[in-house]
Amino acid sequence: MSQDHTVKAFDEDITRLRGLIAEMGGLSEVALQKALQALVSGDETLAAEVVKSDKEIDVLESEVDKLAVRIIALRAPMADDLREVIAALKIAGVVERIGDYSKNIAKRVGQVEGRDRFEPFTLLPTMADLAAEMVHDVLTAYSARDPVLALEVIAADEKVDAFYNSIFRNLVSHMVENPATISTAAQLLFVAKNIERIGDHATNVAEMVHFAATGHYPPDDD
Amino acid sequence: MSQDHTVKAFDEDITRLRGLIAEMGGLSEVALQKALQALVSGDETLAAEVVKSDKEIDVLESEVDKLAVRIIALRAPMADDLREVIAALKIAGVVERIGDYSKNIAKRVGQVEGRDRFEPFTLLPTMADLAAEMVHDVLTAYSARDPVLALEVIAADEKVDAFYNSIFRNLVSHMVENPATISTAAQLLFVAKNIERIGDHATNVAEMVHFAATGHYPPDDD
Repeated sequence: MSQDHTVKAFDEDITRLRGLIAEMGGLSEVALQKALQALVSGDETLAAEVVKSDKEIDVLESEVDKLAVRIIALRAPMADDLREVIAALKIAGVVERIGDYSKNIAKRVGQVEGRDRFEPFTLLPTMADLAAEMVHDVLTAYSARDPVLALEVIAADEKVDAFYNSIFRNLVSHMVENPATISTAAQLLFVAKNIERIGDHATNVAEMVHFAATGHYPPDDD
Repeated sequence: MSQDHTVKAFDEDITRLRGLIAEMGGLSEVALQKALQALVSGDETLAAEVVKSDKEIDVLESEVDKLAVRIIALRAPMADDLREVIAALKIAGVVERIGDYSKNIAKRVGQVEGRDRFEPFTLLPTMADLAAEMVHDVLTAYSARDPVLALEVIAADEKVDAFYNSIFRNLVSHMVENPATISTAAQLLFVAKNIERIGDHATNVAEMVHFAATGHYPPDDD
């Protein structure tokens, strides 16, 4: 009976831990899409909202940290249960970083000019949608402990990388042809790079989910 | 006696954990300096060495993870001891990221041309030395649990940011004046950004060290 009670308490804690991470993931997905919307429309109020929402993600991460420490201290989980708590800590850390990249994008909104003259203003939101979908899917894979969905996320990263390479080339050509807009083009290069990094981090989480579900990491071709 | 034995075993484990992190820090410091050396001299063999050494850092991080899990499982540390183990996990994660940035710099070596025509080729190594010093100092602060040195690392980040801003402006002017070299200038922008991020991450570790030593985070002006 007491054993059952402990197991139940542990399960409830883990469910809460996973709930916090799902909440972080949801916020970071929305932050990315809003950051791009702000970038494309030049909406600095929306950009400020994204920067502010990053603080919420940070607060959630520190709640995950505290809860994880409490679970370990109070429940003394063993083996798989302990690995699950450690994985939650690591995943929360990565999702927090994903939030940082969106914040970085939002911070560039005020430094961008001549929006109608850049092709990447149509490409970047599509690229960001792909990356946001990766974040969404990897957190679904985490919730469902689904290694197949995790592999799909890893595969999707190639599309994000292809977008990045195409936008990079486009911006460099644009710079050569329009030296007056180089400063904005450089900002957009960083935006593209930030989205590409979000894809990389979603991939990292996918590898952790795959490991947690199967006991081995997917083959790495890095 | 048995209590003493447990305490001693815990202390030995923690010392090993700290030793692994110091080793990661040393490798990542060297990787950054070698990456810049490879960039400036165009030495692709040295660049390949940096990329390879990043795998060693990754291996050490997974050793930290495994040891931390083992310590928690076997020693069931409480309160401060548990926080120390969790901090080690987090710090190892950040140092691993610092290694990734150096790897990213090394991977750009082959894409850089016309080295003698860029002023940042003298500025970037100095900027990298500053960042490497931050990494070095923050790990010393971690080993010595020294909150004052941690604050110095946080203050040093301003110098790295100033370098970044100056190099960014320099490269954008260079692009405007020399459209033919825009592609290389864009690579150097990313190098500068990577070094700036290393400074940010050293700052993050410094905040954790300060927290571990004093129980509160230094004031954040982010």
